[in-house]
Amino acid sequence: MPTMRRPVITLLTDFGIEDAFVGVMKGVILSLAPEAQLIDLTHRVKPQSIHQAARVLRYSVPYFPPDTIHLVVVDPGVGSQRKPMILQTPDGFFVAPDNGVLTDMLLSAGQFTAVALENQQYWLTDQPSTTFHGRDIFSPAAGHLAAGVPIEAFGTAIENPVVLPRNTFEHISKTQILGEVTYIDHFGDITTNIEPMRWVTNDNVQLTLPAENKALTIDAMSANLTIDDHSFTGIKHTYSDVPVSQPLLLIGSGRELEIAINQGNAQETLGVSIGDSVTFTFTPISTSN
Amino acid sequence: MPTMRRPVITLLTDFGIEDAFVGVMKGVILSLAPEAQLIDLTHRVKPQSIHQAARVLRYSVPYFPPDTIHLVVVDPGVGSQRKPMILQTPDGFFVAPDNGVLTDMLLSAGQFTAVALENQQYWLTDQPSTTFHGRDIFSPAAGHLAAGVPIEAFGTAIENPVVLPRNTFEHISKTQILGEVTYIDHFGDITTNIEPMRWVTNDNVQLTLPAENKALTIDAMSANLTIDDHSFTGIKHTYSDVPVSQPLLLIGSGRELEIAINQGNAQETLGVSIGDSVTFTFTPISTSN
Amino acid sequence: MPTMRRPVITLLTDFGIEDAFVGVMKGVILSLAPEAQLIDLTHRVKPQSIHQAARVLRYSVPYFPPDTIHLVVVDPGVGSQRKPMILQTPDGFFVAPDNGVLTDMLLSAGQFTAVALENQQYWLTDQPSTTFHGRDIFSPAAGHLAAGVPIEAFGTAIENPVVLPRNTFEHISKTQILGEVTYIDHFGDITTNIEPMRWVTNDNVQLTLPAENKALTIDAMSANLTIDDHSFTGIKHTYSDVPVSQPLLLIGSGRELEIAINQGNAQETLGVSIGDSVTFTFTPISTSN
Repeated sequence: MPTMRRPVITLLTDFGIEDAFVGVMKGVILSLAPEAQLIDLTHRVKPQSIHQAARVLRYSVPYFPPDTIHLVVVDPGVGSQRKPMILQTPDGFFVAPDNGVLTDMLLSAGQFTAVALENQQYWLTDQPSTTFHGRDIFSPAAGHLAAGVPIEAFGTAIENPVVLPRNTFEHISKTQILGEVTYIDHFGDITTNIEPMRWVTNDNVQLTLPAENKALTIDAMSANLTIDDHSFTGIKHTYSDVPVSQPLLLIGSGRELEIAINQGNAQETLGVSIGDSVTFTFTPISTSN
Repeated sequence: MPTMRRPVITLLTDFGIEDAFVGVMKGVILSLAPEAQLIDLTHRVKPQSIHQAARVLRYSVPYFPPDTIHLVVVDPGVGSQRKPMILQTPDGFFVAPDNGVLTDMLLSAGQFTAVALENQQYWLTDQPSTTFHGRDIFSPAAGHLAAGVPIEAFGTAIENPVVLPRNTFEHISKTQILGEVTYIDHFGDITTNIEPMRWVTNDNVQLTLPAENKALTIDAMSANLTIDDHSFTGIKHTYSDVPVSQPLLLIGSGRELEIAINQGNAQETLGVSIGDSVTFTFTPISTSN
Repeated sequence: MPTMRRPVITLLTDFGIEDAFVGVMKGVILSLAPEAQLIDLTHRVKPQSIHQAARVLRYSVPYFPPDTIHLVVVDPGVGSQRKPMILQTPDGFFVAPDNGVLTDMLLSAGQFTAVALENQQYWLTDQPSTTFHGRDIFSPAAGHLAAGVPIEAFGTAIENPVVLPRNTFEHISKTQILGEVTYIDHFGDITTNIEPMRWVTNDNVQLTLPAENKALTIDAMSANLTIDDHSFTGIKHTYSDVPVSQPLLLIGSGRELEIAINQGNAQETLGVSIGDSVTFTFTPISTSN
């Protein structure tokens, strides 16, 4: 049973940082894997928001070493029949409830192994609490995994882990897409589900259309996004392409079409909420496979 | 003077995370003990709340290795005559002001050693600030301790560390207990001082009565808790035993009787505050020693 | 190319802790320098506040080992012409935008080396995002630096890094200084730019006058600070020198003249804001060089 050298374990929860929950999970892990390097992704996922946690994972995992263990505890069904599991993909190890939070990890992986955390030998106690499996089941699994226990030892295979429907935009005409606001960050930048997008020339951006297995190239300067009674024309390269306090459209660091305000807070200024509809109107330059 | 291998040092303060206070303490520690593994319990203790910090410690310490150093700086008397100290018990090392924050650690330990942090050799400077002993006295002590300095070297023994009265419930009749709300967590779960409680069968829970040195077994389904003009009947096993958005009584992960709302926020919905009185009425099944 | 043993890397940003930004930066660093010890100074700098970030650095850096790498990403000009850089001084290494955030580090260092982060070999990708250089340029630089890459390898020298004017008080007469509120901490303590100050006897404090290259000794008991329509007389040693809930003047742990309330929140009670003017009136005892 080989031991990894200083394995990285990330933690992603909706536990907040006011209580001792996160510290306790780290104590459990370090009791089993004293050399682990513990990294917080965030503990400020909206309580019970599986979708938000999934987005944080999708955004973060590519930047970690592929032998990282990602511990995800956003678990509205704690104590019910949903299974605790370990998923292994080429991108990393994931210890989480089987409630769909790992959807993107499953979809982006060509192959995976998933097992249920059934073997009580690797629980903290044979009488786990019914409300804090993060402490009693998930953290011990992460710790044992980091200490070298092979994932097959934790339980039987889960053949079909839960996959949630992805929130994707609608390509309603040759020049128009309907989407929605999916996330608003600390700076008030407003992120939409119109993604993945990237610059292909200084003037043109490309949007992948997964449903059609195509990529659409469009003119950046004439592209327009409307939301509520606000309208923004022209995709900019960065914040400082507009004067301070002015809004802009841009492609964010997650490759999503975003609305921001240069050195300001777009969400506060525009009064937008997650789930609001957006309409994206554009001039297509070309379509490619 | 032996050096521990990657000693774990936890930090528990009321310093918040907006300022540099916590980072500075970590810099001081790492300057003395570069191999230390630093773990935040929480820095969001209500300013000056010794009782809240004590509760976090009681909840957390059992999950850490017993050679962990717990650094606790909730210190309303900083710069006054209260003594900075190191306490060693079978559960860990504690570096904290002698102001009662270690009450539970003292009461649960069969034996202890406590010394005052008097030896200026182990301070950061011989002219410490009067307002940030976390930086100038406590963190250096944690760092030196992690680096192998024996606790006797820090100063003379404290024979009677401060012990605060424990906030316990009143067992006012064979079928009734008066208690109060002691904590409200990030999810809005409302914790009472009716504890420690645990399931003994699928239908019965047991409550320890420390004052009487007894344990009381009661029927879970008929048990009732009232608070303000709210009344809850039946102790459930977990959140999902009731429909989403419905309140429930349950035994929390800290073994305290709690009020929660399945996938909701009980505190916001019920408008309850710390210190509010609760009445717990029940049918006793048996009493045992 | 020597590798440092467990290099300490601090992180100071305005990214908040709700999003994955900070975790992603840590993933990038650990992919390059798996042994790094990562310490958060704070991620709660007011968005785009270079001055606040500079103050946190000035307060924190002296308490870290001098081979620490301080990664500072408060970067309102991200994606524009401002240069990303590494600064080396006797106090540490600093990876930051060249926007003035390192002003105090430059001024306090007798000597420095600064290079622009131009060498794309040390970027995360040769097509970095325009909005998250923290991930794509700054964190990779910190990681490579920790792994032993010499700073000369990152790019050409920056001869004159940006230095911002320091916010200093005005010494308007022999008995009076005009200053302002520069910071308000988590406890509501109100910090002014009247600094650096220190106790020289039990009754007298000394204030350095950098513009005049002198130090002024004044009587603590008769000193007075006014702000808005509040007036405070007498500099105290610590909070408990006044009754609970009473305000006091004191010298804070950053050696700045502060207003606090013993076990209370001065900012909430007094309604003061950053930038408010203060008048400090005193009896000089002596002036020295």
